[in-house]
Amino acid sequence: MTQVTLAKVGGNIIDDAQALEAFLKQFAALKGPKILVHGGGKLATKVSQAMQLKVNMVDGRRITDAPTLDVVTMVYSGKINTSIVAKLQAFGCNAIGFSGSDGKIIEAVKRPVQTIDYGFVGDVVTVHPETLKLLLNNNITPVFCALTADHDGQLLNTNADTIAAELAIGLSQDFDTALYYCFEKNGVLRDINDDQSTITHITPNDFETLQQEGIVSEGMLPKLNNCFHAVKHNVSKVCLGQPDMLFNPNYKFTTITQ
Amino acid sequence: MTQVTLAKVGGNIIDDAQALEAFLKQFAALKGPKILVHGGGKLATKVSQAMQLKVNMVDGRRITDAPTLDVVTMVYSGKINTSIVAKLQAFGCNAIGFSGSDGKIIEAVKRPVQTIDYGFVGDVVTVHPETLKLLLNNNITPVFCALTADHDGQLLNTNADTIAAELAIGLSQDFDTALYYCFEKNGVLRDINDDQSTITHITPNDFETLQQEGIVSEGMLPKLNNCFHAVKHNVSKVCLGQPDMLFNPNYKFTTITQ
Repeated sequence: MTQVTLAKVGGNIIDDAQALEAFLKQFAALKGPKILVHGGGKLATKVSQAMQLKVNMVDGRRITDAPTLDVVTMVYSGKINTSIVAKLQAFGCNAIGFSGSDGKIIEAVKRPVQTIDYGFVGDVVTVHPETLKLLLNNNITPVFCALTADHDGQLLNTNADTIAAELAIGLSQDFDTALYYCFEKNGVLRDINDDQSTITHITPNDFETLQQEGIVSEGMLPKLNNCFHAVKHNVSKVCLGQPDMLFNPNYKFTTITQ
Repeated sequence: MTQVTLAKVGGNIIDDAQALEAFLKQFAALKGPKILVHGGGKLATKVSQAMQLKVNMVDGRRITDAPTLDVVTMVYSGKINTSIVAKLQAFGCNAIGFSGSDGKIIEAVKRPVQTIDYGFVGDVVTVHPETLKLLLNNNITPVFCALTADHDGQLLNTNADTIAAELAIGLSQDFDTALYYCFEKNGVLRDINDDQSTITHITPNDFETLQQEGIVSEGMLPKLNNCFHAVKHNVSKVCLGQPDMLFNPNYKFTTITQ
């Protein structure tokens, strides 16, 4: 099967114009079919403040009321996604920007209210890979922002890590999928204070042990749960580490497999 | 040759949520390959004001400095385009949103400064129709906002009428192209005070006579120049009128042919 590379980048790249430009230049040059998924970074908060909107965070998560959804849509799909696509094109990569509803790729629902009402926040129901396959097979690079829509066309703010995992899962029947979560650390560290203590390979069995030993920190748990969800659903491998892991095979990072 | 329908809608549809929804529902049901191009309406001005940015218009045209370009990008490509795509999907039309740089479709340059510096405003150089053809042949409906980018990935605010005309021209080698400019009037009127005085057909010869007779008003001139530019470059027909002309064959509107 053809390998497809899915890379997810977050705030540490998105919020740093120079780092973003350097990343996009290397990503554009990456061989083979590929997909980029990006988070929103801090710009949505800045725009909300400029528009005198109240920013409402609970446990580090943004509560998305209607005015906030407008800001998130403008920033994620407008400013960030459009700029990334234009830069990738300038670097010779034939990119097209996507929110989840473009091409009917991601089907989502508004998150049901339990203890907290997150507002217009989406949970992914399923991925329809047909349009993605058409584009990947024609050397086009889809670039996804962290937005989806429900069946009625209601836009929904949606976790970018989840979108990346679900896209990888959705493509796994037709491609050998490699999912790269780029963040600010050298992968999963055995000692959080030692950048060189990267655990290079983790399987589901190892994960249980690491949790029992208290090595996996609470902040890493949702990310790792996304990773294991992906490998459990036929994604070939999930890699965690700094963006350089995509371009430099000698870079230290963590690989997760079944 | 297969016919492709290109529809351009402006502020009278974009600024009216109910009219937009009704239009999208009918547009989604339109048979055959189709493309939608939309202008920005008044939302960019509202967002600029909410962010305390100065709106600078010269002769009714927006001067696009860097902060204004950010707003225009957020509003056109973010809020409006993403919402339209999600709605079309809800109505069963497999849409994908585009700015000009997505899919390397529109090549543009920053408008050279002559008497007025319009700032980050784009002039279309050429259209590369390959990706568009791929999508249209796979029953996907591209939705374009009024943004392009130059060779270096610099985003540029670009006239939506021009984008529609250039896309139609770019597709005319492979498709029988019909371009519909939707606006608030029943086409070109012989008497501006009489909504029923629609001139149903205009050729380049008629256009000269109409100008000599003073029937074509100044406001209509740039629009009509776009129309004749299109038919001169092999667009089969250009229609001017209210959106209903797309859906109701008995509706009065103006058709322009070579």
